[in-house]
Amino acid sequence: MVSVAPVLVTGFQPFGGETLNPSADVAHALAGARVGGVPVVTAVLPCVFGRSLEQLRGALDTHRPQLVLALGQAGGRDGFSIERVAINVDDARIADNAGIGPIDTPVIHGAPAAYFSTLPIKAMVGALRRAGWPAAVSQSAGTFVCNHVFYGLMHSLRRRRVRAGFMHLPLLPEQAARRGGPCLALSDQVAGVALALEVALTTRGDSAESGGALD
Amino acid sequence: MVSVAPVLVTGFQPFGGETLNPSADVAHALAGARVGGVPVVTAVLPCVFGRSLEQLRGALDTHRPQLVLALGQAGGRDGFSIERVAINVDDARIADNAGIGPIDTPVIHGAPAAYFSTLPIKAMVGALRRAGWPAAVSQSAGTFVCNHVFYGLMHSLRRRRVRAGFMHLPLLPEQAARRGGPCLALSDQVAGVALALEVALTTRGDSAESGGALD
Amino acid sequence: MVSVAPVLVTGFQPFGGETLNPSADVAHALAGARVGGVPVVTAVLPCVFGRSLEQLRGALDTHRPQLVLALGQAGGRDGFSIERVAINVDDARIADNAGIGPIDTPVIHGAPAAYFSTLPIKAMVGALRRAGWPAAVSQSAGTFVCNHVFYGLMHSLRRRRVRAGFMHLPLLPEQAARRGGPCLALSDQVAGVALALEVALTTRGDSAESGGALD
Amino acid sequence: MVSVAPVLVTGFQPFGGETLNPSADVAHALAGARVGGVPVVTAVLPCVFGRSLEQLRGALDTHRPQLVLALGQAGGRDGFSIERVAINVDDARIADNAGIGPIDTPVIHGAPAAYFSTLPIKAMVGALRRAGWPAAVSQSAGTFVCNHVFYGLMHSLRRRRVRAGFMHLPLLPEQAARRGGPCLALSDQVAGVALALEVALTTRGDSAESGGALD
Repeated sequence: MVSVAPVLVTGFQPFGGETLNPSADVAHALAGARVGGVPVVTAVLPCVFGRSLEQLRGALDTHRPQLVLALGQAGGRDGFSIERVAINVDDARIADNAGIGPIDTPVIHGAPAAYFSTLPIKAMVGALRRAGWPAAVSQSAGTFVCNHVFYGLMHSLRRRRVRAGFMHLPLLPEQAARRGGPCLALSDQVAGVALALEVALTTRGDSAESGGALD
Repeated sequence: MVSVAPVLVTGFQPFGGETLNPSADVAHALAGARVGGVPVVTAVLPCVFGRSLEQLRGALDTHRPQLVLALGQAGGRDGFSIERVAINVDDARIADNAGIGPIDTPVIHGAPAAYFSTLPIKAMVGALRRAGWPAAVSQSAGTFVCNHVFYGLMHSLRRRRVRAGFMHLPLLPEQAARRGGPCLALSDQVAGVALALEVALTTRGDSAESGGALD
Repeated sequence: MVSVAPVLVTGFQPFGGETLNPSADVAHALAGARVGGVPVVTAVLPCVFGRSLEQLRGALDTHRPQLVLALGQAGGRDGFSIERVAINVDDARIADNAGIGPIDTPVIHGAPAAYFSTLPIKAMVGALRRAGWPAAVSQSAGTFVCNHVFYGLMHSLRRRRVRAGFMHLPLLPEQAARRGGPCLALSDQVAGVALALEVALTTRGDSAESGGALD
Repeated sequence: MVSVAPVLVTGFQPFGGETLNPSADVAHALAGARVGGVPVVTAVLPCVFGRSLEQLRGALDTHRPQLVLALGQAGGRDGFSIERVAINVDDARIADNAGIGPIDTPVIHGAPAAYFSTLPIKAMVGALRRAGWPAAVSQSAGTFVCNHVFYGLMHSLRRRRVRAGFMHLPLLPEQAARRGGPCLALSDQVAGVALALEVALTTRGDSAESGGALD
């Protein structure tokens, strides 16, 4: 029997006073599913500097995925927001779930300033839009735990031929009901992430080659 | 046989280069339904100054509704947006669907400067939020065809005991996919409008009395 | 000796935790000046429901102005924001400077739903833009003390031939330095308000007649 | 005679249909001035991929500056916006002033994914705010000519002990008058950039060490 390497999808636990996090709900919804014939494995990471990355590395070792998509919540963004670049900085405006807020420190000392996503980000955005969802390439994943995990992920995979990247998700309607801001229903979020994964699995070339102009 | 007076829900045809308008889709979805035991009748109005109001008046005469909720599209708003007040001004920044763009003219000459919604707007917003959707009271329906219809509606009903008001709806995801901005799925829009109608049918008092603080 | 009736410009005391209010600073800067040959008198009102209006009425009685421009602060707006309409509602999200926050009560019981500004709002906006400042007509002065004063002002003058209106001002740079958001330097705010007053004094017709399209 | 190495400040020519660019006006205003006793030399670069960078390299060779601050315009930002990181991507949504719009190509083939600013960005932001101007650290300089010049600048200086970075400036009031959006008067922009340069010249350590929390 030949087993196929899975896709790893990660989400985060709720943070910042929220009781929900769309990234955790989407990961849960996709756990055990198949996308383009490939099984999906998932992990929900603590919203904590350091520990999140340790658990991610554990999941990479356990599952040996062929592709990784880390997900996070971005209040204020109004659609699927696919990150282009992770930068080597932790700079927290609020404390994480362990009460820690690093300021202007590297994610990994001595490592490069940044890594680009190795997913076909333009192709993913194009497919999401054609399917009827708002989507965009984002030039910054911030400097909080999302960027921390994205950077650490790309650093871990820097010598492996495993494509990886990060997508920010809008709030769920229940969250927006309390605090305002744009939102997207969970069913749309799950379907959109599944579509993006399919595109990522089947598009050749790196993000530049499979890219193109979006307006 | 005693027939119960229906609820009238109106929407608008697409405008501004769009091929969809959530208000028309929601009206279609609710046509023939019952809300709180009351039948819903609908009309989709042209996005044209004057003609929209003529068709609305025709629908009021035909259906003799007990309650009217006019719906319109508001690109950029991120939830159900329930209007408080209609003002007696037409002031178009873009032409309507007949190519007309009135500037600083009254909707109805000699009529009052404004009418307040007679729906329980705070109770409707509260119920929508508790049900998990973003919602807010809005202080301005603009000065385009939406406000035109809202003002004309309230003027037509000024001597009748028929409650009426206006709700702006966010874009549909398919629209936001092309032009960006916040959106809400059609199924959520339909369910939210139905809930708001139920609240409007069952809440006593006018918008002030049934109101209260929202944060 | 014939004395010319003055222009009355009002501002507000700081509120909401601020130590500055651009409207007070602009009023102070214009006190004793002449605009288009007409003397300017000023008043700085407390940011308190009720009391603000009493002091405004006192100033109207004392000065018998030929024109009134009430000013207020609008954090988040990025230019001169000239209000079109005052509505008969007090609905406070935060307490005023006396700790009072009325909800959904009329400014004046039994009075009309709204009054339009009687200033040439489009001509004022046009002149401000031509002079190199951002400016716009606003369709809502909110439901806090600004709208309260604007509504009460228009109600007091409803039978007098005295033109009046309301202009919201952006934050001062010192305010934006602390809380973010757009701002405009005090010298620009003073010069812009003086220009707007000149236009208001010299433009014939009401806001509709002196209006026109702005994009 | 010992001559002191100057500070180089660069701006851009107007682009995107504008006739002004605050960065060029600020550079002009500072040409020949001294900041903290150090002479300021300036260059106004074409808003053209490639050519902008050639001229910048020429200016670096000619002037042998001790510190470089490149300036650019950012419509929509409401204060001084000091960039943290330059990324190795050109991705133009609109054509540059030569009609060229590269998509997803590196600024410099084979060069690192990103460079961090070597200016004390947090100290600069703090000083600007204390002086009464809105200011913030930005995590993305975009992917147009501004980021192109910022990246090329940092790459050119990667082996020299010359500190350098990029600051985005808000629109001038005259620009905001036509297209809307936040703005800052030229006199404030010039004074703020001069202050930021002084801080950059006198603060020890790199951006991380001289940093700290900003809220």
